[in-house]
Amino acid sequence: MRTDRIEALCDGIFAIVMTLLVLNLSVPVVTNEAELFNKLLTMWPKFLAYVISFVVLGVIWSFHHRLLDGVRKCDGWFLWMNICFFMIVAFIPFTTELLSEYRHGSTAIVIYGINSTALFTLLYCQCWYASAGRRLIDERIEAKSILKLKATFAGGALASIAAIAFSFVNTDISIFIFAIVYAAFVVFVATRGTFDARDAQADSKQDAWMR
Amino acid sequence: MRTDRIEALCDGIFAIVMTLLVLNLSVPVVTNEAELFNKLLTMWPKFLAYVISFVVLGVIWSFHHRLLDGVRKCDGWFLWMNICFFMIVAFIPFTTELLSEYRHGSTAIVIYGINSTALFTLLYCQCWYASAGRRLIDERIEAKSILKLKATFAGGALASIAAIAFSFVNTDISIFIFAIVYAAFVVFVATRGTFDARDAQADSKQDAWMR
Amino acid sequence: MRTDRIEALCDGIFAIVMTLLVLNLSVPVVTNEAELFNKLLTMWPKFLAYVISFVVLGVIWSFHHRLLDGVRKCDGWFLWMNICFFMIVAFIPFTTELLSEYRHGSTAIVIYGINSTALFTLLYCQCWYASAGRRLIDERIEAKSILKLKATFAGGALASIAAIAFSFVNTDISIFIFAIVYAAFVVFVATRGTFDARDAQADSKQDAWMR
Amino acid sequence: MRTDRIEALCDGIFAIVMTLLVLNLSVPVVTNEAELFNKLLTMWPKFLAYVISFVVLGVIWSFHHRLLDGVRKCDGWFLWMNICFFMIVAFIPFTTELLSEYRHGSTAIVIYGINSTALFTLLYCQCWYASAGRRLIDERIEAKSILKLKATFAGGALASIAAIAFSFVNTDISIFIFAIVYAAFVVFVATRGTFDARDAQADSKQDAWMR
Repeated sequence: MRTDRIEALCDGIFAIVMTLLVLNLSVPVVTNEAELFNKLLTMWPKFLAYVISFVVLGVIWSFHHRLLDGVRKCDGWFLWMNICFFMIVAFIPFTTELLSEYRHGSTAIVIYGINSTALFTLLYCQCWYASAGRRLIDERIEAKSILKLKATFAGGALASIAAIAFSFVNTDISIFIFAIVYAAFVVFVATRGTFDARDAQADSKQDAWMR
Repeated sequence: MRTDRIEALCDGIFAIVMTLLVLNLSVPVVTNEAELFNKLLTMWPKFLAYVISFVVLGVIWSFHHRLLDGVRKCDGWFLWMNICFFMIVAFIPFTTELLSEYRHGSTAIVIYGINSTALFTLLYCQCWYASAGRRLIDERIEAKSILKLKATFAGGALASIAAIAFSFVNTDISIFIFAIVYAAFVVFVATRGTFDARDAQADSKQDAWMR
Repeated sequence: MRTDRIEALCDGIFAIVMTLLVLNLSVPVVTNEAELFNKLLTMWPKFLAYVISFVVLGVIWSFHHRLLDGVRKCDGWFLWMNICFFMIVAFIPFTTELLSEYRHGSTAIVIYGINSTALFTLLYCQCWYASAGRRLIDERIEAKSILKLKATFAGGALASIAAIAFSFVNTDISIFIFAIVYAAFVVFVATRGTFDARDAQADSKQDAWMR
Repeated sequence: MRTDRIEALCDGIFAIVMTLLVLNLSVPVVTNEAELFNKLLTMWPKFLAYVISFVVLGVIWSFHHRLLDGVRKCDGWFLWMNICFFMIVAFIPFTTELLSEYRHGSTAIVIYGINSTALFTLLYCQCWYASAGRRLIDERIEAKSILKLKATFAGGALASIAAIAFSFVNTDISIFIFAIVYAAFVVFVATRGTFDARDAQADSKQDAWMR
């Protein structure tokens, strides 16, 4: 079992899930210009949910991409962790739309928080399983890099749990936590180093977690 | 005709079929918090069907992945077996949803059973066709490994036929059979050995069926 | 511009288009067992359209796959021929469903025939453009192999035109023509020779059109 | 981070977005032949929107493809530019359908224009970011080639802004501008040089922007 088939399945699933919310944007049926403008304005929570869901999926895809770049082998348990991970990824558009429509109540925030916690917990488990005793990862990756990646995923999971807890006090705090965490992750992904393309594949694998 | 294009088509189709049931999860339209919670609770058969369908597709994808890892060549008949296989794979979400909604009657179970039987029969045929006279598979794969894989697929098909037969006596027995079989397959996939990634591709191909 | 990106886009589009008709299979809402059975029975034209559309797309995918196997370079015009080809491929599920619902009138047959003619004409054009003066194809491919492939595509286009013409006399003749042509193509694809996998990629390219 | 995963995600997203408008073509329910013909005729704006959207996406995909062919490395900022780019690409079917239904008012044209401007601006930014100080691109690509590609993207963005401005005077002028620009781009893509396939991958990368 090679990692390239998992990567292909992963890219296919992310491509579908990223465009999922755009599937139910339909052109409004109106009779005049002013009505069209107003109808489109009332669709803004749908557009916002689409943008948020796309950015969050972009962060998660980048994290998973970075993780797999360091993984040289694949076994059955790691495969199942990936399949469970994909299953939870596919819920992001649904929970994001739920949040964008019912953000003033704790139900939507708790569900979004559970989804987010599950995602980062699975990323943490994959990282832990692959790196424990250097089971699946490249032997040249430093312990420091593994710790850093694990800390990032643990941070995401803990922040999501905190957001769930705060939702019973004040839902605005929860939304603020999610906003801060994902903004931080967007910057985290953006500021990672430069990796060489195909021709330097062996090297880029080695370097993936080091920078 | 190389196997990599079949693999690419396969991954694309599985990505779509795996996320198919999530496509018709839509955010409920409600006026208050309690109603939202209740509406989401009543959606549980849809969520369950999604999870079951995803896990079953994960098992089937892994089996097909394992099979193709041992296949070095491809011919026209093998191609058609694959296309028929993909055609039947795409029915899993539909038959799973049918089963989750109407599990107390034999109609849904018979249909699910036929789908499941067809899947394993086609996997068996692919395995038989590729390995008969070492037509398409790697010559280093041992006869013992081929027999093991064939036995797994035959087991899946026979169990599905048994589930169909028992549905006319007691539908709970049928569901129990399906649950046992897929739980066994999840463990089967999980406990397979470790395979090297890209750089050891030739070796991993050789080893794919041996462990 | 390499052919591998076109192949990746091609596989993605075929994966979506092949599963398109399964997207609108929805589980019927019924109150008892007998009603469920009857409702499912009335869905048979949808199932049939799905199977036919899948098989036809399998034939077209195999032809296009075979064509690209012989193509070593890609230029802008060839790229546009491919994009137009994908555009027409995506209509197959729609025209197949139309045919399965309104097969007794000439409208559906004419539309299906136009779709089919356009497909084979574009395959012919791609083959002609790539092979004229050995513009894009591998220099080792024999003239006889090119002629054979061109004849196959021309045959598909001419048979589709004949089916359109006969639809004004008797629609059953048209359907008979389509059935014969695609049955012949299924056999044509199935009986092509064996090609080596990745490790013999250079050779397989050379041989793709020879067998 | 290698560019091949971005390419795989890109091809998956374009495959879905290209076929998006075909997803909501449904077979009309009618009782006689004449009615079927009329119903299909009234669907022409949907067919037209599909064709336009497919061609525009073909142009954008080719431009992005050409850009990535010259990119040898990938970093975090470049990754985010790509994710934002994919997010905007997924709006093309929606804005195209909007334009095809409400082309006589300025609202639809302004929205289509904003979408088009954003696309070319992001392509320009990617090209500028990758080539500034030869940050990510192949060192053998000539400055002249970079300038040419940047000029093309800047031209697309400026023409889209012009179309937005003219929409307040006369919407026909705006549509004429879009038609001219995309027709020019179709020819631009078609008349680019010939590139070698896989076996000459290193060379084709070098040449990608030179011709």
